[in-house]
Amino acid sequence: MINKLVSEIKKKSAPVVVGLDPMLSYLPEDILNKAIKEHGESLEAAAEAIWQFNKGIVDAIYELIPAVKPQIAMYEQFGVPGVMAFKKTVDYCKSKGLVVIGDIKRGDIGSTSTAYAVGHIGKVSVGSKSFYGFDEDFVTVNPYLGTDGVKPFVDVCKEEKRGIFVLVKTSNPSSGEFQDQLVDGKPLYELVGKKVASWGEEAMGDDYSYVGAVVGATYPEMGEVLRKIMPKTYILVPGYGAQGGKASDLKPYFNADGLGAIVNSSRGIICAYKNEKYAKYGAAGYAEASRAATIDMIEDINSAIL
Amino acid sequence: MINKLVSEIKKKSAPVVVGLDPMLSYLPEDILNKAIKEHGESLEAAAEAIWQFNKGIVDAIYELIPAVKPQIAMYEQFGVPGVMAFKKTVDYCKSKGLVVIGDIKRGDIGSTSTAYAVGHIGKVSVGSKSFYGFDEDFVTVNPYLGTDGVKPFVDVCKEEKRGIFVLVKTSNPSSGEFQDQLVDGKPLYELVGKKVASWGEEAMGDDYSYVGAVVGATYPEMGEVLRKIMPKTYILVPGYGAQGGKASDLKPYFNADGLGAIVNSSRGIICAYKNEKYAKYGAAGYAEASRAATIDMIEDINSAIL
Repeated sequence: MINKLVSEIKKKSAPVVVGLDPMLSYLPEDILNKAIKEHGESLEAAAEAIWQFNKGIVDAIYELIPAVKPQIAMYEQFGVPGVMAFKKTVDYCKSKGLVVIGDIKRGDIGSTSTAYAVGHIGKVSVGSKSFYGFDEDFVTVNPYLGTDGVKPFVDVCKEEKRGIFVLVKTSNPSSGEFQDQLVDGKPLYELVGKKVASWGEEAMGDDYSYVGAVVGATYPEMGEVLRKIMPKTYILVPGYGAQGGKASDLKPYFNADGLGAIVNSSRGIICAYKNEKYAKYGAAGYAEASRAATIDMIEDINSAIL
Repeated sequence: MINKLVSEIKKKSAPVVVGLDPMLSYLPEDILNKAIKEHGESLEAAAEAIWQFNKGIVDAIYELIPAVKPQIAMYEQFGVPGVMAFKKTVDYCKSKGLVVIGDIKRGDIGSTSTAYAVGHIGKVSVGSKSFYGFDEDFVTVNPYLGTDGVKPFVDVCKEEKRGIFVLVKTSNPSSGEFQDQLVDGKPLYELVGKKVASWGEEAMGDDYSYVGAVVGATYPEMGEVLRKIMPKTYILVPGYGAQGGKASDLKPYFNADGLGAIVNSSRGIICAYKNEKYAKYGAAGYAEASRAATIDMIEDINSAIL
């Protein structure tokens, strides 16, 4: 799947992933009201509304981008109906040819990590048959528990030719509290980055590994160091746009071949209609606004890295 | 909810939590076969089987213990039907008066962490109403993203008087890869422990904080240090039994009042009928076997800590 991700990035000239992280406050009122009319004020209404919202955006942008990254927390908050909307979103995006990165940040140990891995990027056996549970192409993984926690995901990656992105340096202000602590004179995130590179060696695609890394756009000097530590690792870069990361900061995350990184924007795209720049589309044109914002983002990033 | 947890531990003289982490291989064949007969070989059959298995165990042990800890990975592996079985299990355990600790090990940043928090231990608004999504009493949280990741959970804890257990030192062999790295001469887990104590200060119950910690039974010398660093923090202790932790190792996790820790066993209880010691119960008596194993565990732990 890393090969497909790379070839789609090349084909569409877009090292960009759109985060499908819908909050109810992002939705045009009409969408929520319609769902409430059908389902009453309920978790089911919220789930139906975010699914309809997603579908509109995906239909408007799927031809432009290689991948989407639904953030499962935004669905889990609505309980079981929310999780059903997550699954529907994953399936729909795949039917449109998009690579789906489930932003689930799971991490546990041994058989428990295996359960997450088979449930999200692999298949589980029931009797004589086997089934894909959530069926994403990639998921994000938390490394705090060490190799025992990550290895079961890597094993499933190899078997399924799907992938993971391991959190190395996150984009948030307090990410340094633990991640930047010096260990033998080097920050912890470098140690994690080295582990990611070594876990990835045993799960190589053509040019890049099935084991990727998350490195926030808000720390370009760290991105530069990590790029060198993990030359064969695809880097998923959150924090562009709403979180403050600028296109001009992104070059260090890419390799000389113009590959090796994929930049995420969530709010900046799916909420574009609330941004003055795209206000002319109005709430009813939220999907077209997200399309315009996607085109602008691709141009912005390509201009900075090429 | 920390007050309820403490009072139930006292009332039942049982600083014990049973992990509801069902794998299909743990189930008596009859339970799975019956579910397959009804639903065919499917994710729905697997979900129905683990729910029936859980129900049998809960009915047999709920009077003995204060709390259960369902591990959501074991349900997520079966996709949406599995998540529905998780929710059914949470609701049923609560109806039996048990404190429910959702072992979800979530962790993200800002609004995303808030979404996990409201979805699992709080409520979410839809129109003029609000709803509990998964409705656990406590959840486990991963600290790798720092205060930005944990604070949204603490805020919901305060509002809802529910709680979290933050991963500090996990029970697995490779937990030391990152957690034991020396930062200014002290292991990282001590730094995390200090943060947990400080996050917890603003969310105090009567004697203990709503913010607890996870410290594995397999590292008692570290448990002793962490107990002192976090005097008001309840410690959830995994790793007893199947993972190698012994009752004699557990004393350092408790305070002088005999409180301050709750010890988890999963496989040792729910799979007891497969253990030679309880084999006489047979597969049909799996629930009674788990009851006998629970009684033995409570006695074993009390004998070591009192």
